[in-house]
Amino acid sequence: MNFPASWLPISESSDFSLANLPFGIFSHASQPPRVGVAVGEYIIDMTAAAQLGVFDQAEVAVSVFEQSTLNALMNGGRAQASRLRTILQHELTTPNSTLHQAADRVLVRQKDAHMHLPVAIGDYTDFYSSLEHATNVGKLFRPEQPLMPNWKHLPVAYHGRASSVQVSGVPVRRPFGQVLPAGADAPVFIPTQALDYELELGFLIGKNSISGRPIRLEEAEDYIFGFVLVNDWSARDIQRWEYQPLGPFLSKNFATSISSWVVTYDALLPLRVFGPEQTPRPLPHLADEGAHNFSIQLEVAINPADAEPSIFCQTNARHLYWNVRQQIAHHTSSGCNLRVGDLLASGTISGPEPNGHGCLLEQTQAGKIPVNLQDGNQRIYLHDYDEVIMRGYGVQPQGRVGFGEVRAQILPANENP
Amino acid sequence: MNFPASWLPISESSDFSLANLPFGIFSHASQPPRVGVAVGEYIIDMTAAAQLGVFDQAEVAVSVFEQSTLNALMNGGRAQASRLRTILQHELTTPNSTLHQAADRVLVRQKDAHMHLPVAIGDYTDFYSSLEHATNVGKLFRPEQPLMPNWKHLPVAYHGRASSVQVSGVPVRRPFGQVLPAGADAPVFIPTQALDYELELGFLIGKNSISGRPIRLEEAEDYIFGFVLVNDWSARDIQRWEYQPLGPFLSKNFATSISSWVVTYDALLPLRVFGPEQTPRPLPHLADEGAHNFSIQLEVAINPADAEPSIFCQTNARHLYWNVRQQIAHHTSSGCNLRVGDLLASGTISGPEPNGHGCLLEQTQAGKIPVNLQDGNQRIYLHDYDEVIMRGYGVQPQGRVGFGEVRAQILPANENP
Repeated sequence: MNFPASWLPISESSDFSLANLPFGIFSHASQPPRVGVAVGEYIIDMTAAAQLGVFDQAEVAVSVFEQSTLNALMNGGRAQASRLRTILQHELTTPNSTLHQAADRVLVRQKDAHMHLPVAIGDYTDFYSSLEHATNVGKLFRPEQPLMPNWKHLPVAYHGRASSVQVSGVPVRRPFGQVLPAGADAPVFIPTQALDYELELGFLIGKNSISGRPIRLEEAEDYIFGFVLVNDWSARDIQRWEYQPLGPFLSKNFATSISSWVVTYDALLPLRVFGPEQTPRPLPHLADEGAHNFSIQLEVAINPADAEPSIFCQTNARHLYWNVRQQIAHHTSSGCNLRVGDLLASGTISGPEPNGHGCLLEQTQAGKIPVNLQDGNQRIYLHDYDEVIMRGYGVQPQGRVGFGEVRAQILPANENP
Repeated sequence: MNFPASWLPISESSDFSLANLPFGIFSHASQPPRVGVAVGEYIIDMTAAAQLGVFDQAEVAVSVFEQSTLNALMNGGRAQASRLRTILQHELTTPNSTLHQAADRVLVRQKDAHMHLPVAIGDYTDFYSSLEHATNVGKLFRPEQPLMPNWKHLPVAYHGRASSVQVSGVPVRRPFGQVLPAGADAPVFIPTQALDYELELGFLIGKNSISGRPIRLEEAEDYIFGFVLVNDWSARDIQRWEYQPLGPFLSKNFATSISSWVVTYDALLPLRVFGPEQTPRPLPHLADEGAHNFSIQLEVAINPADAEPSIFCQTNARHLYWNVRQQIAHHTSSGCNLRVGDLLASGTISGPEPNGHGCLLEQTQAGKIPVNLQDGNQRIYLHDYDEVIMRGYGVQPQGRVGFGEVRAQILPANENP
């Protein structure tokens, strides 16, 4: 089916078509943060809409929308969120609907609103699911054996830091850290000289699982509420010195930025595509069938303080080797439980495209080859005041389904560490 | 000063002397979980005591005690918890005090109560701070270079899983996982054959820090609420296959057990001792002076289903190379923020004693040398229905300050993974 035209003007190039309707937390004027839904250039104030009775048939308490996080809404399950979106689609396409008549009270321009971190994140897990990324990075450090022996048998992952996940727009302070200078045998404590971004897609858990009870592949989608765009900031020089033998720690935990808008799993379903063939075939609990990847066009731009943004990377999430069902089945195969609000991210997404490198470590071959910005500047790693802008969207017949952007500017390191 | 005798009989061998008074969450009869304080064989029902006006001068709302976690209490800061303990010490040593007169209503026998996870844990960080442990484990895998070059320059750590932290007494299901059989080139998915414990001390954050603002060594103690005993369960065969290049994941995230009782930082202060000399001297932001280790006697026992407990390990937390101030200073040196409820653990504690190995991996030299139980049984790794019991306490002139125990039994793996 196609939606009838909305009484609200929605540009065809908007990420927030009627087919999308992502959830977020916004505030405007002097009101406290609360749940909103993006459509075109507007935010629907869900509290105001609920108070008008718009969602009465969905039987959702108004208080669910008066929260400063989406957790209570997510806890209501995918089916409830789906009902809310269906009601909004109907309201937005019906002339003189309740929403239409109360548009003045219910709609807030996005440019007038302030966006907040949408979710209270419990645990944050970061995967390493792009074959191109793992191969490109592996080649830099282990040319003879780029992929570890385990890589094609399980979706490698590590636990990240939840406290420092922040919403798009919040700047990132260049971190200090221990770095081993070339040829030295003792480290120095300096601001990172190798600050990098990582282009990722993340998804948020919308249902608690039971400790000791693995989630099977075919159940996994019940546990997914929606997706966000993720920039997993990384300090490569700090990482190189600290990561043996227990993995990255301070090189990653100073900040992770996510998009303001959570695109529901249901809105992404029309973008499903088959993923790459998996050879060797994974063990039975991870051997998946069907189209469970998503065709989401991704790009990264760097915006220097004194110039226009240059697009550095263009790729697509469809290339990811391990899909989200496999990630959930693997994560819980030990009996580890998932909770509402947990964030699971893909790891850096790189593709086969010549400019499909999802981080500077890859693009510059570990700092050896500078990349040119459109304004003539060059970059190996990020400079102070550079702003990194990531965008992601899919296109399907009923409209564009996008994340908006995740953006953040680099601030100089503290003067006194 | 010494405390006068209490009107409540407290055994000299009790972990819960007047000098301790640790906090926990308990329930009994049909009442909901709430805050309690352990003393001798009893729990002081803090809600009941507050309702009697016992804490009026501390100006703590009764609702702080009616919670199912300690987070609200911890958020009130160390000084508030200290005032509460001082009032309790006075009440417990004053004949006919309010608490004494209402003892029937306020005191619950520990054996009649059910203990709950004391804290809603935000992020869980696990360090690797025992030199003996890192050296012993390193020798098994890299005899020529047991310690990584970074080890003496920073307290190595990784992010753990908060969702699966559980309270003492909750059993642990033997996890399934991918394991590479000897000589094979592809893994199998089986119940772990190398289930291990790790003896650790953990501490809980009681004050939010600011993102981008490192905590200096001399400020670090302001952020510590108290300590727990930790068993960081590990599956060594799963760990060996999965951990490259991003560190342990499923081999650790199926369960972590902590003690029911949170011993306040203030109660541990009389147990302070100097730690080992640090050579080379750490960089300035980690170079600490003074006595910041704790003399806490630790032991691990295994209790097979059909026998008596055998003590496997006896050591002391004083041997830890990196202290908690250094752990906090390092953790936040990148700008990473800490939040009330975060758990930071020491990593496996081993000491120089002949039986001072804090895990079976070390004690059995990676599964090569079985250890003998007192009943004649042997163990390489844990069997189904084995119960692991850890205890920890310090002794000072005013009484014993202990954690009670952290115990859990191993249940067989699921039949259908």
